[in-house]
Amino acid sequence: MKLLIVGSVAYDSVETAAGKVECALGGAATYAAVAASCYTKPCIVAVVGEDFQAGHLDLLRGRGIDLCGLQHKPGKTFHWAGRYLPDMIGRETLVTELNVFETFDPVLPPELIDADIIFLANIHPALQRRVLDQVKNPKLVICDTMNLWIDIARPDLEALLPRVDFLVLNDEEIRLLTGDYNILRGAKKVMAVTRRGVIVKRGEHGSTLVCREGMAIAPAYPVEELVDPTGAGDSFAGALIGYLATAPDHSLTELKRALMHGAAMASFTVEGFSLDAISKLSRADIEARVARLRALTVFE
Amino acid sequence: MKLLIVGSVAYDSVETAAGKVECALGGAATYAAVAASCYTKPCIVAVVGEDFQAGHLDLLRGRGIDLCGLQHKPGKTFHWAGRYLPDMIGRETLVTELNVFETFDPVLPPELIDADIIFLANIHPALQRRVLDQVKNPKLVICDTMNLWIDIARPDLEALLPRVDFLVLNDEEIRLLTGDYNILRGAKKVMAVTRRGVIVKRGEHGSTLVCREGMAIAPAYPVEELVDPTGAGDSFAGALIGYLATAPDHSLTELKRALMHGAAMASFTVEGFSLDAISKLSRADIEARVARLRALTVFE
Repeated sequence: MKLLIVGSVAYDSVETAAGKVECALGGAATYAAVAASCYTKPCIVAVVGEDFQAGHLDLLRGRGIDLCGLQHKPGKTFHWAGRYLPDMIGRETLVTELNVFETFDPVLPPELIDADIIFLANIHPALQRRVLDQVKNPKLVICDTMNLWIDIARPDLEALLPRVDFLVLNDEEIRLLTGDYNILRGAKKVMAVTRRGVIVKRGEHGSTLVCREGMAIAPAYPVEELVDPTGAGDSFAGALIGYLATAPDHSLTELKRALMHGAAMASFTVEGFSLDAISKLSRADIEARVARLRALTVFE
Repeated sequence: MKLLIVGSVAYDSVETAAGKVECALGGAATYAAVAASCYTKPCIVAVVGEDFQAGHLDLLRGRGIDLCGLQHKPGKTFHWAGRYLPDMIGRETLVTELNVFETFDPVLPPELIDADIIFLANIHPALQRRVLDQVKNPKLVICDTMNLWIDIARPDLEALLPRVDFLVLNDEEIRLLTGDYNILRGAKKVMAVTRRGVIVKRGEHGSTLVCREGMAIAPAYPVEELVDPTGAGDSFAGALIGYLATAPDHSLTELKRALMHGAAMASFTVEGFSLDAISKLSRADIEARVARLRALTVFE
């Protein structure tokens, strides 16, 4: 199945209790694509500036990622800088320089309009819609978003949801979107306006799937040496769609397995800065961690 | 196995988004004992005042709870009043009147000194130690605590831990006790000074067991109509020890099952005020919910 990922490619400067990095490769689409590359050859639609390093193009190509949709524009690549609080959960944004990302227009090359699985990483919902308008007949659309878009672009987001199979959200975003404090009830309200349901990302607490076929709860893989939480959610989604791109179907059973793969991938991601901990992973590495996670949660 | 529960019996006045109750039956030992009574006939060591209602004694006796260790003292029963924030997680304490609980001395009647399983609900660690000093040869000791005791009675708590099989804590308490932000690493530090390990209560996110034999992660049972979170943790512990009192052994496998029973019980508790939702439960009710919870988490 052809997998299309649309979102940001960025340079991140990140400071955590474990250290810091300057202008390291980041961005939601990058994390998702590198994660998905453990399973399949994802195609990326994104934009980079003139400062984007050849070595980083090589890294992505080396993972089998199809860059035919990667736009090169005059100017600088999107730059984000942030600092995590000691709990490694809260963070403050120090710099957001959109640069070439400010005028990003996700035009799909002709070879991508027949993509089967679409991951709309966190960008403006109007741009996410623009992607869907170009794709012929996608089999599965998974969409991420953030509190900013719920705040300032709610009509665009609401218009998009009926075309989305699964919306990916965290607890706070569910509360903001639905006004409901109860996550399960809120997730069901969101489910009602999507094609299939909601995937609730809960960080160190795992994830919850709420869809018409039923529910599933997946734990996070416990990480003792957390280095950098950046990209955990994006790589979670990347592994999930990567897994689904190679799965026999997208039934609840396969979705449950996909959640476990997402959890395993996210746990690798946070063990290093930037893509350090996932850029050399194989599917077998993920499977091994999924097996350990399963053993922690099996109750016969 | 003879199960002994030591802690508070109280009257609670609680206000939540779902309503309010005045002077309803509460207290850690009460919740734990009623929960455990789905499995066995627990013995309670606690103190009540002259205002304690005969109907509440009947309720406890009706659940098969042995009240030979329940002291009746002049004065009023411990009274707690609190209000939950709309998220049903945060809460503010409005009233704490210790009353007869202020001078509680947990003297065990002779028939309880051969108890097999001890649950030390959340009271001052010096009192918890005093209980252990009276019990002959307990097979399993599970101990709850709170941030207050970590703050003001740390030496007492630290002296107690080598005599405790499992300490029950939440994330915040682990951080406070160990100074470690990482819950898994913190839990391992606590494990090192207990006999077997730590049970981390994570509210709506479930629980994590960290012990020498291994780890286990149990989800919470998702509740859509949350009425009153009071007693969730105590009834979780009560079901856990109740289950273990009837289990063939206290191996990791049985502990995992016990966590699931705790999760199911806690989910019932929060569906009503006070003990409303659990005071008529049977073990079969719990087993049915455990089965549903298992189905949400099984990934073959």
